[in-house]
Amino acid sequence: MKRYKAYLIDLDGTMYRGEEKIEEASDFVKQLVAMNIPYLFVTNNSSRRPEQVADKLRSLDIPAGPEHVFTTSMAAANYMYAENPEASVYMIGEEGLEAALKEKEFRFEDENPDYVIMGIDRDITYEKLAKACLAVRKGAKFISTNGDIALPTERGLMPGNGSLTSVVAVSTQIKPLFIGKPEPIIMEQALKEIGVSPEDTLMVGDNYDTDILAGIRAGVDTLLVHTGVTTPDMLTSYKTQPTYVVHSLTEWMDKI
Amino acid sequence: MKRYKAYLIDLDGTMYRGEEKIEEASDFVKQLVAMNIPYLFVTNNSSRRPEQVADKLRSLDIPAGPEHVFTTSMAAANYMYAENPEASVYMIGEEGLEAALKEKEFRFEDENPDYVIMGIDRDITYEKLAKACLAVRKGAKFISTNGDIALPTERGLMPGNGSLTSVVAVSTQIKPLFIGKPEPIIMEQALKEIGVSPEDTLMVGDNYDTDILAGIRAGVDTLLVHTGVTTPDMLTSYKTQPTYVVHSLTEWMDKI
Repeated sequence: MKRYKAYLIDLDGTMYRGEEKIEEASDFVKQLVAMNIPYLFVTNNSSRRPEQVADKLRSLDIPAGPEHVFTTSMAAANYMYAENPEASVYMIGEEGLEAALKEKEFRFEDENPDYVIMGIDRDITYEKLAKACLAVRKGAKFISTNGDIALPTERGLMPGNGSLTSVVAVSTQIKPLFIGKPEPIIMEQALKEIGVSPEDTLMVGDNYDTDILAGIRAGVDTLLVHTGVTTPDMLTSYKTQPTYVVHSLTEWMDKI
Repeated sequence: MKRYKAYLIDLDGTMYRGEEKIEEASDFVKQLVAMNIPYLFVTNNSSRRPEQVADKLRSLDIPAGPEHVFTTSMAAANYMYAENPEASVYMIGEEGLEAALKEKEFRFEDENPDYVIMGIDRDITYEKLAKACLAVRKGAKFISTNGDIALPTERGLMPGNGSLTSVVAVSTQIKPLFIGKPEPIIMEQALKEIGVSPEDTLMVGDNYDTDILAGIRAGVDTLLVHTGVTTPDMLTSYKTQPTYVVHSLTEWMDKI
């Protein structure tokens, strides 16, 4: 059995379910720490800052600092910065995206931005969407943190950022560049961040369409854990299977 | 040259452009009145009540009462009423849609409605979209007043109802039933309202993709006027041409 030198780990459905604890997650990450194996949480959630994500993980007894968190907001900001560090940006999004853009010192601009970037925004308004549409039509490059169509909550499946992004995509007929899983952009950056080669890294997640597909596309082995979205039944319909499948991370403890 | 016994007429781009007058529109409608030819304005604009639309037309010296206005909100309410007059409804929309639903005495219901109906809503919120998504996932029938992706304004092309509708369609993966032009539903009702057979009716409009296509699909002859969206250049790309094409309605005066 191959041993991996680094772990990329999904959050919701893998480390917790919404506000609910996944018991075995804590022991799993503690074992990585004990064995001195680097790990990075890779999340499509653009709304929170790394410090906030780490706080939540620690409250669930999962060892984590901000340095263990890599969000799609950070990946989007890095991507834009590499293209044009002087760029102006019109943003629709919450605190996490705003912080990532400010970290890179992007200039915020409503009328003629170089980029329009969309992340989940639960204070969305028609005016925000209108500004995004007008800017994209004028030629701003259109970026979206992730294409997730639905967000699981206690109330049920709420609109995800992919569905909000569709307002601008449908209205302008211009497709955005998506940054988050399953796109390669976030994975390439996460691999660079953790500093271990793809062959020696394992991607762990509960969602085939985001986590596992992201791993497959990035040439990283994958471990699907059935504690979230993708059920054993759903998994049978996919042609390319994950490298490994477990019902709970407990089953993986002796393979770390 | 065939003479038509009734006219279905588009508004924006045909009778006016936003707040701007189209000079020849007034004489055109006055000629219909003088010759005692029935006419009905058929509009995808769901936001206003027929009284408000007629007021605007009269302010542009175009003869019109509420009885001359047929909106997609009215068509949607009629459609739902024919299916289920006792239905409960969750609505996203503005004054025109609300009035049309109240006219039919539908019961408004947030949680478990029989229908979710979406029209343009410039006070859209995440919570409104979330309620629509939750209800559609629970089995509410999903209806949208129209699929227009963009609204022409002085500021440029703003998000249309079709693009707002896409949030719910993308998130739930359930397609709505569209009511407005170019769909047959609004045309069938408008023809019934005006009470003249399709063969003797002419559909007049500036937009091939909505007005002309609606006429073609409804078996009604069409007159495209180049005072709005579809330019002569754009028109060459369509296989099925309108029955008639004019640059301005002045050219049609002696054919009424």
